[in-house]
Amino acid sequence: MKFARFKTNDRRILQGIVDKDYVQQISGDLFTEWSYTGESYEMEEIELLAPLTPKHIIGIGANYVSQTTDLPDQLPDMPVFFYKPISSVIGSNRSIIIPKNCGEVKFEAELAVVIGKQASNINENEVTDYIFGYTVANDVTAPQFFHEAGHWTIGKSFDSFTPLGPYIETELDPDEIKVEAYLNGQKKQDSSTKLMIFSMRQMVAYLSNVMTLQPGDIILTGSPVGAEMMKDGDEISCEIAEIGILRNAVKQYQAIEMNSKA
Amino acid sequence: MKFARFKTNDRRILQGIVDKDYVQQISGDLFTEWSYTGESYEMEEIELLAPLTPKHIIGIGANYVSQTTDLPDQLPDMPVFFYKPISSVIGSNRSIIIPKNCGEVKFEAELAVVIGKQASNINENEVTDYIFGYTVANDVTAPQFFHEAGHWTIGKSFDSFTPLGPYIETELDPDEIKVEAYLNGQKKQDSSTKLMIFSMRQMVAYLSNVMTLQPGDIILTGSPVGAEMMKDGDEISCEIAEIGILRNAVKQYQAIEMNSKA
Repeated sequence: MKFARFKTNDRRILQGIVDKDYVQQISGDLFTEWSYTGESYEMEEIELLAPLTPKHIIGIGANYVSQTTDLPDQLPDMPVFFYKPISSVIGSNRSIIIPKNCGEVKFEAELAVVIGKQASNINENEVTDYIFGYTVANDVTAPQFFHEAGHWTIGKSFDSFTPLGPYIETELDPDEIKVEAYLNGQKKQDSSTKLMIFSMRQMVAYLSNVMTLQPGDIILTGSPVGAEMMKDGDEISCEIAEIGILRNAVKQYQAIEMNSKA
Repeated sequence: MKFARFKTNDRRILQGIVDKDYVQQISGDLFTEWSYTGESYEMEEIELLAPLTPKHIIGIGANYVSQTTDLPDQLPDMPVFFYKPISSVIGSNRSIIIPKNCGEVKFEAELAVVIGKQASNINENEVTDYIFGYTVANDVTAPQFFHEAGHWTIGKSFDSFTPLGPYIETELDPDEIKVEAYLNGQKKQDSSTKLMIFSMRQMVAYLSNVMTLQPGDIILTGSPVGAEMMKDGDEISCEIAEIGILRNAVKQYQAIEMNSKA
C-alpha cells in the first residue's frame, strides 16, 4: 500500500492511498486509525508533497560497502548517527537549493524507514513490528560545512536538504531491494541493501536502546557508493523500484533570488 | 511573564502563567494567540512539566571562556552545533537516567532560547524580535558515547538527557544574567552570559542562515566552565535567578528497573 500526502488545486493538504493513476483520499492518523473519505483525485491534478512530516530524521554515515566481500566480519562498536532538521524536508519535484557561498552539494540516495509504533529497547528480531513503511530519501549534504572537529550538523541542515518521497510503501522487504540514483539521467548509484554494514534492523534496534523512537521518526539507512556533487541546473532522481522515483531539480540560492525579483 | 506547562491531580496537561504561588491557566497557542481561562491552581497541587515540547533542540559546543580576557579577538569560522532529540526532554523534578553500561553522565547548565516566530536569514540586530522567551536547560551528556570521529549524536541523545524548565520567562536581558549549577548543593558552575564566545544573537542569526527556525525551536547556548560528572543518587540544580531552578535527581538505569519490579 502506498501512502501519499498532496496538495489539491484549491491548496488543501490531504493524505491518500495511491491506486494507479488515482489517489483515494483518507482521513485520520496514519499510525493509529484512518479511513477512506470516498473522494479521489487524479495524479495529474495534484501536487505530491513529502509523504509525512517526520518527528525526527536520523541518518547513519558511511554504511555501504562496494561489494559483499568488503563487508566487515565484525560490526564497528558504534555507528555514526546524525540528525537532520524537519525544516530541511521537501517533496518530490521541489528544488534542492545550493546554499549561499557554496557552488555544489552532494546527493545521497537512501532507503528511509518510517517508525510506526513507539519503540524502546527493542532487539533486531522485533524491529519490523515497529515499522510503518519505507520511502526514498535524498540525504543532500554540503561537506564544505562539516566542522573540522568532525561535526556534520551544519552540512546536513540547510533548507531543502532532505527530499522525501514520492510515497510511503508499507509492503516491502528491505533486504531485497536496490537503491539507485541518476544524475541528469546518468546512473550513479545502484546497490542492493545487502551491501549495508549495519542492517536496517541493527540500526533501528541500536537507536531504540538510546532513545525512545516515536511514530513519525524516520531513519535514513545510508547511501551506496557513487554519490557525487550536483550544481545549479542539474536534476537528481533517487529511485527504489518498489517505492517510486524521488526527482528534484538543483538550483543555486542566488538564481532563486533573481527569479523571484524578475 | 513566566509560562508553565503542568499536570493536574486528575492528569490533565495544561498551560498557565505563574503568579507567585498560583498558576493562572491559559488556553491557546503560546506563539500565536492565547487567553486566560479563569481557572487557577496552587503550585502545590500541580506537577510542573517541561514548559514546552520543542520542535528542534539545537546545542552549541564549547561556547564559554573562564574570564573575559580569554574571549577571542576573532570568532571561529564555524560554531560547533549539534541536535538533541525531543524524546530526551524531561521537566524539573523528574529523574535523569544514567544509561546501561555507563556509570556517570555530565551536567551542563545552560540558558535556552525559545524561538517564537519563523526566522530565516536574519541578522544579529533582528534576533530579539524572533525570540519568545528563555528557559533553563541541562544539556546532559554521556561523553563515553561520543564517536571517535567526532560525532556527539549518541552521547547527547538518551532519554531524560534534556531537562528543561521550570518556566519560560519572556522578560529577560540575556546579556546580563548568570548561569549556575549546584551538584548536591555545592556550586559548580557560575558564569555570566558575557563569557559566551558566540553571543546568543550571533548563534541564532548564524543558524537562521542555515535553516528556517520555527516557533518552538529551542537553542541551548552552551555551558559555562565547571561541568562535572554525576552518578546514581546525585541531585543537580541548574539555575538562572530570573527564570528559576531546574532540579533533577540522577538515577542509574538498572536501579529504576529493580524499583519497578519491586
